[in-house]
Amino acid sequence: MRVETVDRIAQELDAEGARVRTDVDNFFAGLLVPTSDGREQLYQAMRHAAIGGGKRLRPLLTIAASRLFAIDRDRALRVGCAIEAIHVYSLIHDDLPCMDDADLRRGKATVHKAFGEAAAVLAGDSLHALAFEILADPATHEDPWVRSDLVLELARAAGPGGMAGGQMMDLAAEGEQLDLPAITRLQQLKTGALIEYAVEATCIMVKMPADARTPYRGYARNIGLAFQIADDLIDCSGDEAAAGKPTGRDAYAGKATFVSLLGEGRARQQAEFLVNQAVEHLAGHGPEADLLRAIARFAIERDH
Amino acid sequence: MRVETVDRIAQELDAEGARVRTDVDNFFAGLLVPTSDGREQLYQAMRHAAIGGGKRLRPLLTIAASRLFAIDRDRALRVGCAIEAIHVYSLIHDDLPCMDDADLRRGKATVHKAFGEAAAVLAGDSLHALAFEILADPATHEDPWVRSDLVLELARAAGPGGMAGGQMMDLAAEGEQLDLPAITRLQQLKTGALIEYAVEATCIMVKMPADARTPYRGYARNIGLAFQIADDLIDCSGDEAAAGKPTGRDAYAGKATFVSLLGEGRARQQAEFLVNQAVEHLAGHGPEADLLRAIARFAIERDH
Repeated sequence: MRVETVDRIAQELDAEGARVRTDVDNFFAGLLVPTSDGREQLYQAMRHAAIGGGKRLRPLLTIAASRLFAIDRDRALRVGCAIEAIHVYSLIHDDLPCMDDADLRRGKATVHKAFGEAAAVLAGDSLHALAFEILADPATHEDPWVRSDLVLELARAAGPGGMAGGQMMDLAAEGEQLDLPAITRLQQLKTGALIEYAVEATCIMVKMPADARTPYRGYARNIGLAFQIADDLIDCSGDEAAAGKPTGRDAYAGKATFVSLLGEGRARQQAEFLVNQAVEHLAGHGPEADLLRAIARFAIERDH
Repeated sequence: MRVETVDRIAQELDAEGARVRTDVDNFFAGLLVPTSDGREQLYQAMRHAAIGGGKRLRPLLTIAASRLFAIDRDRALRVGCAIEAIHVYSLIHDDLPCMDDADLRRGKATVHKAFGEAAAVLAGDSLHALAFEILADPATHEDPWVRSDLVLELARAAGPGGMAGGQMMDLAAEGEQLDLPAITRLQQLKTGALIEYAVEATCIMVKMPADARTPYRGYARNIGLAFQIADDLIDCSGDEAAAGKPTGRDAYAGKATFVSLLGEGRARQQAEFLVNQAVEHLAGHGPEADLLRAIARFAIERDH
């Protein structure tokens, strides 16, 4: 690709990234309006977690993938916000004292530090339910088949066969030395399932048959793992400003990571290989896939 | 009604109640098959909470209401199990040390006591997601409009505008003296919304317009409050065998209840009034509503 094309696409990624962050903030600000009937703390806790923070990778992926199929951006945004609601609920619960016991998230106090543990549990539970309310709302898509399938696949990606199951594997692995296949499987459930869904959701929105979704799921699976390796590289680099949270936690907990298993150099090579594979899955597409290609590159460049 | 009719219906309620308890247990036993990949504890925790306990009031209500509209019992059972999954997840999270800090539930150890807090949080989260996976599965209903609406209304009943919001109100009310309208509102969110959904789901399954659902929602709202009053009466009676958990907790926590506000006699009268109102909502129906009528009576008789 010519240098000016690469520059243009990088600028577009910056611009769309900023726009998505604003749109997601506005969506949650409009949805989470505090009441004055004893639920103030719940809504404030949800707003604290859902507004103003994070890269919004999942909604960005959904919106970028929606360009492949000329899906209305507002609809893709709603689906992306449902996915983000699941992601945010999982962060709230993962940060609890009985899980990772984290004080800091996205550069500010975790929800249980700011609002107490009970409100944190309920804020997570509430965002979890809201995700499905958003998807099942006719405003998300006029075709009920699409809404129902969006719900079905998100529930699978979030539940015991996906994110929640991966989180359990992660807890069970503490003190154990997992090997590379086991770590890969763990991450595919813990973070990969939701990232894969962020892209597959756009296939569902155009009622693409399941077997035709393979390249899009492949793209997402590859960048999901690449992002995880990049996260591990940041965690072991000790750059807390880049991480927005304390680093070195995995090494401290004795957990195996891609970096501890492969070493920094080979981990970085593996991430590059995954990004190239991800981009290959988009070979059948033209410029409408440029944003997805730029996100893939961003996966390994953001920690430089 | 003639005595032999009342006896026959009471027997039918006993029989259907026992059948529903068996069916719900079998459903979850088939759904929650432990894996051997680091998620064993998660599935065991879900099984511990979801199998073998509880009155299964919500699935029983859905199955009883499905008789009004000649809905296939297996389908009503799937919907009832989705509702029960939400109910069970809420019990797991409510029992956590940061919430009610309960050791005993349905006559056995709470999930966090048996499996640890982290597994309890994740088991609740997993059952939460599974509920929506069950509803959005084409096996539940062939019409995607029905599946999508079942999801939409369950998400509303479970989320911050329903059960989770009511739980927050309950926490916020500790040490405060709520009055009768505030307690009623709290209970309508905390337990009423899901009980109302258990009946309304059958209206959704026959695509009944929203305004025609009023009597069915009215029935459910009335028995939901009647059940809550009955629970309060059990809690203050100190009968731990009937409650399946420690009693006297509300009084100990300084919480206002229907019994503390009304006194035992007037609380019992109010429950009877609500049951009569519930039964009146079914006046347009014949013997197909007998099971719902029997459930209403059971609401206030179970603590005798």
